[in-house]
Amino acid sequence: MAEPRIVTAAVLIVGNEILSGRTQDVNLAYLAKRLNELGIRLREARVVADVEADIVAAVNACRARYDYVFTTGGIGPTHDDITAECVAKAFGLPLIRNPEAVARLERHYEAGMLNEARLRMANTPEGATLIDNPVSIAPGFQIGNVIVFAGVPRIMQAMFDGIAGRLVGGAPVLSRTVSAAVAEGAIAAGLGDLQRRYPSLDIGSYPYFRQGRFGASFVLRGTEQAQIDAAAMELRALITELGGDPLEGDATAR
Amino acid sequence: MAEPRIVTAAVLIVGNEILSGRTQDVNLAYLAKRLNELGIRLREARVVADVEADIVAAVNACRARYDYVFTTGGIGPTHDDITAECVAKAFGLPLIRNPEAVARLERHYEAGMLNEARLRMANTPEGATLIDNPVSIAPGFQIGNVIVFAGVPRIMQAMFDGIAGRLVGGAPVLSRTVSAAVAEGAIAAGLGDLQRRYPSLDIGSYPYFRQGRFGASFVLRGTEQAQIDAAAMELRALITELGGDPLEGDATAR
Repeated sequence: MAEPRIVTAAVLIVGNEILSGRTQDVNLAYLAKRLNELGIRLREARVVADVEADIVAAVNACRARYDYVFTTGGIGPTHDDITAECVAKAFGLPLIRNPEAVARLERHYEAGMLNEARLRMANTPEGATLIDNPVSIAPGFQIGNVIVFAGVPRIMQAMFDGIAGRLVGGAPVLSRTVSAAVAEGAIAAGLGDLQRRYPSLDIGSYPYFRQGRFGASFVLRGTEQAQIDAAAMELRALITELGGDPLEGDATAR
Repeated sequence: MAEPRIVTAAVLIVGNEILSGRTQDVNLAYLAKRLNELGIRLREARVVADVEADIVAAVNACRARYDYVFTTGGIGPTHDDITAECVAKAFGLPLIRNPEAVARLERHYEAGMLNEARLRMANTPEGATLIDNPVSIAPGFQIGNVIVFAGVPRIMQAMFDGIAGRLVGGAPVLSRTVSAAVAEGAIAAGLGDLQRRYPSLDIGSYPYFRQGRFGASFVLRGTEQAQIDAAAMELRALITELGGDPLEGDATAR
């Protein structure tokens, strides 16, 4: 059987407000989960300021390296919204006033309200495909492997729903979590050995400290359930050997 | 008067758990706020997987470009904790078992409990300065302009408190926020004009939609209070002209 192709992605969060601490980003965790379900592995995320050169450089670094790049933020009507023009620059494409996007805005705004600032929201790189915005109409877009979303979480999520069907994923990443009240430092050697014997899996260890006891959740991720289950059985035995009581599921979240 | 020096930073979040959506990062927002208070501008953040080449490349890209680089995560005892060795590689320095870090761990662990996995937490690049960990002892470290913190928020915050006094900031970034029930698209032209006339300020616009009304909070940031106040006065007049009622403070957060 041929190895399933690994499909990768990066997320680019555009916005001074995340870097000033004004806004707690929630889009990254949302995208990470949704992409994972589609068999797309999020390999990197970057938060960049509203600075043209920085956005252009980040778009180009990521689009060359990953199958998909998702950007969030910077597509509103104000002067600090510069994502569309930066993505156009990154691709060396002209920024055009997209006729279909203009038509959508014209249908949405009352007569006389569609001013120049709002029309800027219809700007896309030439050749871009629009992404529907059922919340506030002004669309996102896709050009090449770069997918441009709004930053407002409710809008970003609606846009993702609209395009999820056109994303091509690889083998879905399956995972199983085993937790136990054992200290990471006690199990580390055995866990490292397990990782070496299951190189196709990604084994993570996430400690917690609660009610005076150390514990950890161990996450086994991979594309083959049989591998995951075999490793989980060995992990449970390892925990028992150390005097722990292995539990299925994530104890750090409880 | 000489321009105050701008001091910059990047944050590097190391960990598969953020990229898989398992864990919602909260360290970035915390660091952003604390650095801001110290007059250090966070310019960029990256989330990288537990992959040596990626961490080394990100450390080197950021340390060359910014005054400070703060990393979070990857300094525990398990096989997926590789930040210390990656930072050493990035600097081309040997990874040593830091004697002072070993001494701290020896004082902390009961006899026979300090195994090889736990001793790995005493590894640092040669020449690194330790950063105290009052929560779980295993220290962070600083080498050059790179400051290595734990990923657990409570530990990361305690480490930051311990080293905040040695960070050298520039002019603190002051800010003032004015909110109003005006649509971004209606005020965008005037706001863009205001930004052009106050180039030393960074004017951001953050929309909200609540109880059937559009509104936005406008954040004016800069190092000179007089400039901020003059721009805020003009902004309030602009809002009034559009039929809005300017309010001091952030309405998106309410």
